[in-house]
Amino acid sequence: MNKKIPVGVLGATGMVGQQYIRLLADHPWFEVVYVAASPQSAGKKYKEALKSGWLVGGEIPSNVAGLIVGDVANIKRAADSCAFVFSAFEMPDKEAIKTAENAYAAAGMPVFSNASAHRDTPNVPVMIAEINPHHLDIIPAQQKANGWKKGFIVVKPNCSLQSYLTPIHALIAAGYEVEKLIITTMQAVSGAGYPGVASLDVIDNIIPLIPGEEEKTEEEPLKILGELKGGKFAPKKNLAISAHCNRVPVSDGHLACVNVLFGKKKPSKEKILEIWKSFRGEPQTLELPFAPKHAIIYRDEPNRPQPKMDRDADKAMAVSVGRLREDTVFDFKFAALSHNTVRGAAGGGILTAELALKKGYLQV
Amino acid sequence: MNKKIPVGVLGATGMVGQQYIRLLADHPWFEVVYVAASPQSAGKKYKEALKSGWLVGGEIPSNVAGLIVGDVANIKRAADSCAFVFSAFEMPDKEAIKTAENAYAAAGMPVFSNASAHRDTPNVPVMIAEINPHHLDIIPAQQKANGWKKGFIVVKPNCSLQSYLTPIHALIAAGYEVEKLIITTMQAVSGAGYPGVASLDVIDNIIPLIPGEEEKTEEEPLKILGELKGGKFAPKKNLAISAHCNRVPVSDGHLACVNVLFGKKKPSKEKILEIWKSFRGEPQTLELPFAPKHAIIYRDEPNRPQPKMDRDADKAMAVSVGRLREDTVFDFKFAALSHNTVRGAAGGGILTAELALKKGYLQV
Amino acid sequence: MNKKIPVGVLGATGMVGQQYIRLLADHPWFEVVYVAASPQSAGKKYKEALKSGWLVGGEIPSNVAGLIVGDVANIKRAADSCAFVFSAFEMPDKEAIKTAENAYAAAGMPVFSNASAHRDTPNVPVMIAEINPHHLDIIPAQQKANGWKKGFIVVKPNCSLQSYLTPIHALIAAGYEVEKLIITTMQAVSGAGYPGVASLDVIDNIIPLIPGEEEKTEEEPLKILGELKGGKFAPKKNLAISAHCNRVPVSDGHLACVNVLFGKKKPSKEKILEIWKSFRGEPQTLELPFAPKHAIIYRDEPNRPQPKMDRDADKAMAVSVGRLREDTVFDFKFAALSHNTVRGAAGGGILTAELALKKGYLQV
Amino acid sequence: MNKKIPVGVLGATGMVGQQYIRLLADHPWFEVVYVAASPQSAGKKYKEALKSGWLVGGEIPSNVAGLIVGDVANIKRAADSCAFVFSAFEMPDKEAIKTAENAYAAAGMPVFSNASAHRDTPNVPVMIAEINPHHLDIIPAQQKANGWKKGFIVVKPNCSLQSYLTPIHALIAAGYEVEKLIITTMQAVSGAGYPGVASLDVIDNIIPLIPGEEEKTEEEPLKILGELKGGKFAPKKNLAISAHCNRVPVSDGHLACVNVLFGKKKPSKEKILEIWKSFRGEPQTLELPFAPKHAIIYRDEPNRPQPKMDRDADKAMAVSVGRLREDTVFDFKFAALSHNTVRGAAGGGILTAELALKKGYLQV
Repeated sequence: MNKKIPVGVLGATGMVGQQYIRLLADHPWFEVVYVAASPQSAGKKYKEALKSGWLVGGEIPSNVAGLIVGDVANIKRAADSCAFVFSAFEMPDKEAIKTAENAYAAAGMPVFSNASAHRDTPNVPVMIAEINPHHLDIIPAQQKANGWKKGFIVVKPNCSLQSYLTPIHALIAAGYEVEKLIITTMQAVSGAGYPGVASLDVIDNIIPLIPGEEEKTEEEPLKILGELKGGKFAPKKNLAISAHCNRVPVSDGHLACVNVLFGKKKPSKEKILEIWKSFRGEPQTLELPFAPKHAIIYRDEPNRPQPKMDRDADKAMAVSVGRLREDTVFDFKFAALSHNTVRGAAGGGILTAELALKKGYLQV
Repeated sequence: MNKKIPVGVLGATGMVGQQYIRLLADHPWFEVVYVAASPQSAGKKYKEALKSGWLVGGEIPSNVAGLIVGDVANIKRAADSCAFVFSAFEMPDKEAIKTAENAYAAAGMPVFSNASAHRDTPNVPVMIAEINPHHLDIIPAQQKANGWKKGFIVVKPNCSLQSYLTPIHALIAAGYEVEKLIITTMQAVSGAGYPGVASLDVIDNIIPLIPGEEEKTEEEPLKILGELKGGKFAPKKNLAISAHCNRVPVSDGHLACVNVLFGKKKPSKEKILEIWKSFRGEPQTLELPFAPKHAIIYRDEPNRPQPKMDRDADKAMAVSVGRLREDTVFDFKFAALSHNTVRGAAGGGILTAELALKKGYLQV
Repeated sequence: MNKKIPVGVLGATGMVGQQYIRLLADHPWFEVVYVAASPQSAGKKYKEALKSGWLVGGEIPSNVAGLIVGDVANIKRAADSCAFVFSAFEMPDKEAIKTAENAYAAAGMPVFSNASAHRDTPNVPVMIAEINPHHLDIIPAQQKANGWKKGFIVVKPNCSLQSYLTPIHALIAAGYEVEKLIITTMQAVSGAGYPGVASLDVIDNIIPLIPGEEEKTEEEPLKILGELKGGKFAPKKNLAISAHCNRVPVSDGHLACVNVLFGKKKPSKEKILEIWKSFRGEPQTLELPFAPKHAIIYRDEPNRPQPKMDRDADKAMAVSVGRLREDTVFDFKFAALSHNTVRGAAGGGILTAELALKKGYLQV
Repeated sequence: MNKKIPVGVLGATGMVGQQYIRLLADHPWFEVVYVAASPQSAGKKYKEALKSGWLVGGEIPSNVAGLIVGDVANIKRAADSCAFVFSAFEMPDKEAIKTAENAYAAAGMPVFSNASAHRDTPNVPVMIAEINPHHLDIIPAQQKANGWKKGFIVVKPNCSLQSYLTPIHALIAAGYEVEKLIITTMQAVSGAGYPGVASLDVIDNIIPLIPGEEEKTEEEPLKILGELKGGKFAPKKNLAISAHCNRVPVSDGHLACVNVLFGKKKPSKEKILEIWKSFRGEPQTLELPFAPKHAIIYRDEPNRPQPKMDRDADKAMAVSVGRLREDTVFDFKFAALSHNTVRGAAGGGILTAELALKKGYLQV
């Protein structure tokens, strides 16, 4: 791999798009050569197209700052320059996003999407690289069903579930079925994009509602943990999840308080810790560039994980877990945290693309 | 009641003590005539004894600002001037608080305590005036057991449970047994007193631990909801509670996310709303001065209750509840909020004293 | 005054409009009988027209909640029901606001405006009731110039200057000319309206720019402190003001740090304190309902005024001042604070209307 | 330099001490081999001696975590293992710190101190490496006066002035005398150490007082900018500074709003920008490891510098400046920002030690 693979970012001027560009700045395999946004931004230099400025810290990577923004509707331009694209669309209209992503796939471009539009599409995998790497194996069936040749669509799940689902998956993978989960999330404002949450709403306050978020937190895990059989996903059975999702005055990092009820086979506290501390997913085995060394970091300190202290753990890609203790109602309870705009968004998308490359689904 | 009843505040210079003094400034029945604190403060004018200043807003009530602070060890001085005392001790040593409160009771002074020292004492009632007003009936037995004549000790529970317990009690009182509760609290920094939580710990952060708080949140309700039989409290049976307690960057107001599993008899959503909206406790019936008109305020807006918007509802004495919805794991879930230093501390203590007076336990 | 004077609120659904409605709920003289907003809101019940809900605390006053919102373009409806209107327009287009306010005035309605559109209009007074009550005397000339009979337009200044200008005026009024002022403000997010400042911009952050605010802070005082001569305002001479305006993570309350250079006649520190403590404006003399008892409250504590502790002083209408000390560069320096959405916006507008009524400019 | 120079940290368990240890973790020249603290901590492993935990992010460097903490009174142990020490004492008693630092110097140890104790000592230089590197030349005179051989004491100034003083120095160094400075700082809570500022004091609030801070901000620059002549420092003449220092709800990063009056020779705006953009101090020339590439980074965006966006610029060692504009009262005004616990504390101390090494004052 002497030469980097050219990639594009759709919706490049929004906050998630910026995050992709920031994270890809020094990527060993991928290089951003194309950025696309709405017609209003098209034709401008990238650095001049950012209406609210560069929101994600540091400086705009110099190789992107001067790129001329393309119109997202101009698929040919993307196809001519990129091997695949990251979709960071922030349009309110889900159907429009679906249509756009389909058009890119139809034009031969693999699409790694941050948008929620395709999460319900039966043959689109919802990926957390450490949990369901084998779900990428649906790609040929997806291509066939759509008549696509090289293109395909892969999405990432909602950020609200990425703190607790990897630790839960590790337990299931170790042979301990989980029957019930009750979860309360405390979610950072960056999860709402920019400008997102009004400061008047969160200074000295908590908002106990994030519209649509509880449903996603309860339902998406069933697909992610489900089986891929006969070209489709069978949702995980016998697992019920309940979620309260709160918006808190924190900039980055979603924290979840979790109660777990196991099935008949119940691990001890020591066993759970052992499982978490030794957990390795395929990204770790493959030593993918964006893979955290440990997908799960267990903190022994009694008052961790905390957003400010733990969100940036291992390039902001690790899930930090703590406070595992026996529960008076279910079996165990714990707290878990992940960085919502890196692990839970752009970083997770990049990791999935790395995985797809290594598994041979990217013809580059 | 032409003349107000003279009362004292012990631990008057701390934040809870200040809150008592602020709230009692215009009380129709009670008047603060005596304030006591540690020997270091004794002998000074109250306004000059406040090392960290007046922390609770507005100005120091003029009738208290000039009072000479007494030494809490000087029980006689209190007994000579007050009909009863509010205890707002903030000493770290629980045994010392117990000893001090016992000494006041032994000297003939009813003690309404904010401290946790006596919450486990079998014959000391832990009061939420709307829930267990009949628990005051243990007073004669308590006095007899201790050889006290007029004095007694009554305490308030931890602030963390005062958001959700009144709504749960209302359901039980309406005939719907509750079997399991899973709760996550998001608690304001004022709950830790002053200086309390370091700003570096909560700016842009959440702390998922408040030492000792989860145990209190899980256990104290069983006593409060328990039966008073044969001169002692039998804890509520067949109710299991699990709590996660988090410290959040909010000044006042504890918010709880609650999942409820009922026993065999399960109310509908409409029934629950009807129960909450019509709930009246004895403080409401007696129209006590500090009683909120509605002990439970149900908010129909989908994003309420919120600390900043709802903590001050009805003199900061009402519990605000919202987001009642069916649950995928238990039966229902909801969010509840109360003002932790008013409803959950000083205001609750004053309401209990009003109740005790009306029920004839204060000989004034 | 047996019957209250009927008033209208234009732009009633925005945050300043809501603040007017909240503050007028129990006004002894005025009663809101009419609310107007954009065509999208017109025709709905007020409580249902609030897209972002009721943002200003407590509940929507019951006498307004059910009013049918009028279209601001329907001036006749306002004229038929109201003696005068408060304008809380939040349109971005200043010319449109001018046109609208002129139309109301032309239709015979006095307009007390919160908008900045008319602040530069030569014959429109920019009012702080304690500072320039005599500026209302331009009203007849304004009416004549415009051919208006009963209608007129009066505006309030920018909120950023309302913390420091009353204390400065008091010194000038006492005979001490002020030559130079260097000011740094730390302004609350509510000053930007709703949704206003993005939470991502102010959590753990300060923004050292509020577009347009420094210019207003430097220029508007010269008109307010100016002379009314020959039917126009001569700006205050020999006073130079420099301002830095910062947005800080505070919900309400603008704080200013001020350095003052006097002219030749320089007061002592004691003299300044005496002037401030004894200052009374016409609202105090007339005992207007919204007048704070003391327009300036000097705090002796070394660490005051603070937004959270002092913004609500005397119905949030008093200016709190503190930290007066000799300066190493100019003569003195101090800190000053006022509540930006009450004193600095709706409350100030109401006070001006009260003043206009008492001075005979409202024919009701 | 094949082998790293062994160094010690005094007061190693406090927040500044932790910051030194974090920053020195991978230092190319220096290695922490010794940590000392109060007798209560002495004898414990470093990681177990941290009462409030590791406060500065990431993990405790592995080479320090297991060091046995020495007693600061045991100077011989330090002298046996370290070439020099960083002093991060947080004792309240200045005289005790002076005595301790003197004892280390007398024992032959150069001391780079973060404490304020020795800032007034006539022959102790107060160092900002980009501004007054030549002040280190007082070391021989200091050693002689005290009868010290290898030991000496060098201190860093208060963090409050490190945002604005380098830009001001650059202008003076370019030949533009500065006569007056009026400054308002907005300082982060980490400046008060840990636990430091109570969260109740800064949530939704500003505190307009930091005791002692304004005096330091006004006086220390005169020594730093002063001449070293005949073995002593002559304070800068004809410069008057006035400061307001505020505590704001920001974790790290001190922001200053500055008004500057030049002497007769006044630069243009373009000239100032040119001076700042081209400014290089001795640390830059020597390419010291902790030197930022540009000591001053000028931000062209109209709303910068901001604490969250700019505090970490160039390893948190650069000063970020912005908003240069002409002033209505003085000549120019601008905003400046530096990271208070890195540039303004531990990082600044390390940079000074690097400078001292390169200038030959450390005999290692």
